[in-house]
Amino acid sequence: MKTAITPTRAENFSEWYQNLITAADLAENSPVRGCMTIKPYGWAIWELMRDEMDKRIKAQGVQNANFPLLIPIEFFNKEAEHVAGFAKEAAVVTHYRLRMIDGTLQPDPDSKLTEPYIIRPTSETIIGEAMSRWVQSYRDLPLKLNQWVNVMRWEMRPRMFLRTAEFNWQEGHNAFATHAEANADARKMHGIYADYMRDVLAIPVIRGEKTPEERFAGADHTYTVEQIMQDGKALQAGTSHDLGQHFAKSFGIQYLGADGKLQNAWTTSWGTSTRMMGGLFMTHSDDDGLVLPPAVAPYQIVIIPITRDENAAELNAFAENVGQQLRAVGIRVLVDTCDMRAPDKMWKWIKRGVPLRVEIGAREMADAMATVTRRDLGKSSKQTIAIADLVAGASDMLAGIQRDMYNAAAARNDTMIVNVADLDALESELAAGRVAFFRLKYDMTTNERFDGLIEKYKISRRCLDDNDPTYVFVAKSY
Amino acid sequence: MKTAITPTRAENFSEWYQNLITAADLAENSPVRGCMTIKPYGWAIWELMRDEMDKRIKAQGVQNANFPLLIPIEFFNKEAEHVAGFAKEAAVVTHYRLRMIDGTLQPDPDSKLTEPYIIRPTSETIIGEAMSRWVQSYRDLPLKLNQWVNVMRWEMRPRMFLRTAEFNWQEGHNAFATHAEANADARKMHGIYADYMRDVLAIPVIRGEKTPEERFAGADHTYTVEQIMQDGKALQAGTSHDLGQHFAKSFGIQYLGADGKLQNAWTTSWGTSTRMMGGLFMTHSDDDGLVLPPAVAPYQIVIIPITRDENAAELNAFAENVGQQLRAVGIRVLVDTCDMRAPDKMWKWIKRGVPLRVEIGAREMADAMATVTRRDLGKSSKQTIAIADLVAGASDMLAGIQRDMYNAAAARNDTMIVNVADLDALESELAAGRVAFFRLKYDMTTNERFDGLIEKYKISRRCLDDNDPTYVFVAKSY
Repeated sequence: MKTAITPTRAENFSEWYQNLITAADLAENSPVRGCMTIKPYGWAIWELMRDEMDKRIKAQGVQNANFPLLIPIEFFNKEAEHVAGFAKEAAVVTHYRLRMIDGTLQPDPDSKLTEPYIIRPTSETIIGEAMSRWVQSYRDLPLKLNQWVNVMRWEMRPRMFLRTAEFNWQEGHNAFATHAEANADARKMHGIYADYMRDVLAIPVIRGEKTPEERFAGADHTYTVEQIMQDGKALQAGTSHDLGQHFAKSFGIQYLGADGKLQNAWTTSWGTSTRMMGGLFMTHSDDDGLVLPPAVAPYQIVIIPITRDENAAELNAFAENVGQQLRAVGIRVLVDTCDMRAPDKMWKWIKRGVPLRVEIGAREMADAMATVTRRDLGKSSKQTIAIADLVAGASDMLAGIQRDMYNAAAARNDTMIVNVADLDALESELAAGRVAFFRLKYDMTTNERFDGLIEKYKISRRCLDDNDPTYVFVAKSY
Repeated sequence: MKTAITPTRAENFSEWYQNLITAADLAENSPVRGCMTIKPYGWAIWELMRDEMDKRIKAQGVQNANFPLLIPIEFFNKEAEHVAGFAKEAAVVTHYRLRMIDGTLQPDPDSKLTEPYIIRPTSETIIGEAMSRWVQSYRDLPLKLNQWVNVMRWEMRPRMFLRTAEFNWQEGHNAFATHAEANADARKMHGIYADYMRDVLAIPVIRGEKTPEERFAGADHTYTVEQIMQDGKALQAGTSHDLGQHFAKSFGIQYLGADGKLQNAWTTSWGTSTRMMGGLFMTHSDDDGLVLPPAVAPYQIVIIPITRDENAAELNAFAENVGQQLRAVGIRVLVDTCDMRAPDKMWKWIKRGVPLRVEIGAREMADAMATVTRRDLGKSSKQTIAIADLVAGASDMLAGIQRDMYNAAAARNDTMIVNVADLDALESELAAGRVAFFRLKYDMTTNERFDGLIEKYKISRRCLDDNDPTYVFVAKSY
């Protein structure tokens, strides 16, 4: 059977992913090394994802702010583990003017900065410096901040959405009076991320704490939300860090307690990014293109009038009227009346993953009926129903798609989590080419033999199992 | 009379402005040269401004997208006027890694880029390059794009909100098949900006085309929206450019016409930024602090319970209930029950410009009354009214504040626009220290004598008068 995307997932998952992005018109590689351009359809998805996340973050009493893009190197250098983790991928600004020299536009040597800046890879340092001034007394705590910004980490093996030099994200940075509060905050956001992925992205996740090897550079505890892609690889989709007093001590975030004593604060940071979009696309899509959960679909329903020359005006107007009725019940609808053949329109919106496709031809119009097809189930779901029933039932149908997409992903996840009794069993699975989330006792992965397997099979410890932290998940990852 | 902000506007306008920003907790200078940190209260205002502008832009059929932060120097260099306009303030990225050398963290010489990048000062070039691929046929036009991003122009004399090295903005970039359509688009957005400032920011503007001396680098026509600050200086608050075929030719944005001929497209660009916030603050605020129009006030109403120890719990709960009633009619309300003296709360929210202040004490609670004061009118507007009337009338009261603030600014503008008959008259006004928008025949300002006045009095041509383009406005500016 011919599919809209070639190669198929089974043939070559990684090429399929690239072609999916092109076919759905989501993004493209840009002329800037490792950076992508997010095209309008992709950005519309991100705006929905961002607005819903923003609402959930604000509901926690967090306030948005905006800190500078550039970070003085001296700030960056204040926390030793942090600098070790990020220095190798920092974009450095060294000049502030261009000049024509020998016919070439070049950095003007006279504009060289005494202290270069780096483009933020993350903002713990510059926000830590601000917090050291904003926090004076226990009354100033907790201080809960977030920003939606672009960051940059020079990537050697970029991949659209999953790993790009520049990416967009939200980064929350909170300060507390006690370790208990800070740790509770990091754990709470971990849960909020997991809930968001379940409820909004229809993605079931593996939750747990990172092992020391995989912690954020400068954290005491890193809590992660891992997604399982259709090819069995892991995607780290969101992390939340208990930073202990590392940044408080490096930047002097101190407060005068109710007892009159000066103490160091405790901080957290947590973030999710456009990377989640890669997880969304790789979790739900199929060989015909994108499949979007209704919650983040720019158009939840597309209406395609199947016109002939003699009835085009009338049928387009009829379809537009159905669109208005659906918009009136709060649904995002596109009525595609553009000058293109109906089958081409159909494939265009299949590839772009619109959850529900509604076709209306002359006969349907006469009968006040419409033919409805779910993107997630395809042809088998096709049915012709009364337009009145479509309008009355559309919200429920979309909720059903959202729920079924989650359940389908959860059922697949179950087949991809494999318990292994010992390292022999793990090695034989890996040697056989199995790609999955292997679950084994954590102490098995803290020895030389396991380090050898990491090297040989390019796997990594994803996280401890929240249900029993003596177990760890290991997998290949994006 | 003691004022909350010292010095007053009359004593020192520019210091007053700095202190206003601090007193209202809007922003602060950051450790990065020329860059500010926008604090939560300031950012909440920007989010309201941005969301409303975004809605108006999308209503024009424009789609948001996201292009890279970095621009290859070769792209930047393709349009001669453009590069001449921006090269002198470009932040340059030359390395992609840091290394510890002799105990100092430095750009790693081994990571030097063959082709440096600049941080976008504006995105005509990189978007032009994308358009050259996205536009192939007349069917692809018009192409209407916008992005909300940060940009950077190295500023030698930074000033919070008005002129900062990094700032946030929206930049629209559209391509059309004909010059007529492109020019109409540039003019339409000019009008949309003016309407937005009138309806949302309560700011009356001077609209007109820039003279050739003041055009955007690479434009055929630049349309500007100028605001008059309380000190009589001009603030350019938004511009819209008809770029002719400059960028289409430099980047090869060509389309195959319906006639089968290959033609160059015509492009426009238009932008507004966080600079508008500076205009908002300097237009409406007074010697007691910020005055916000209700449309962009994070809290439109603040309720302050005037509690005593014995009734605090009951009164706070009562105030919270009034807050809920107001929220139910769609108003953004803060009920300030925090642990602070009532007069301190009152001054805090006066300085932060909350449009309507509601005080409820024991007697008011008993009578189901509240004392209401408008921020724009101050004490003279103080009245005690039934809470039922407050809830029923709050939307109208806020609309009245919005309208009156606009009218007050318009009345002040009228006093600041001065017609001058000749250059002698202009010079004597300037020599007398008058700061205003001087209106005179444009041909008077295209000679050496006028250039001498520009130099001497630091004025500039702001724009031609839209009502009669043979006249031009000249003024000092921010």
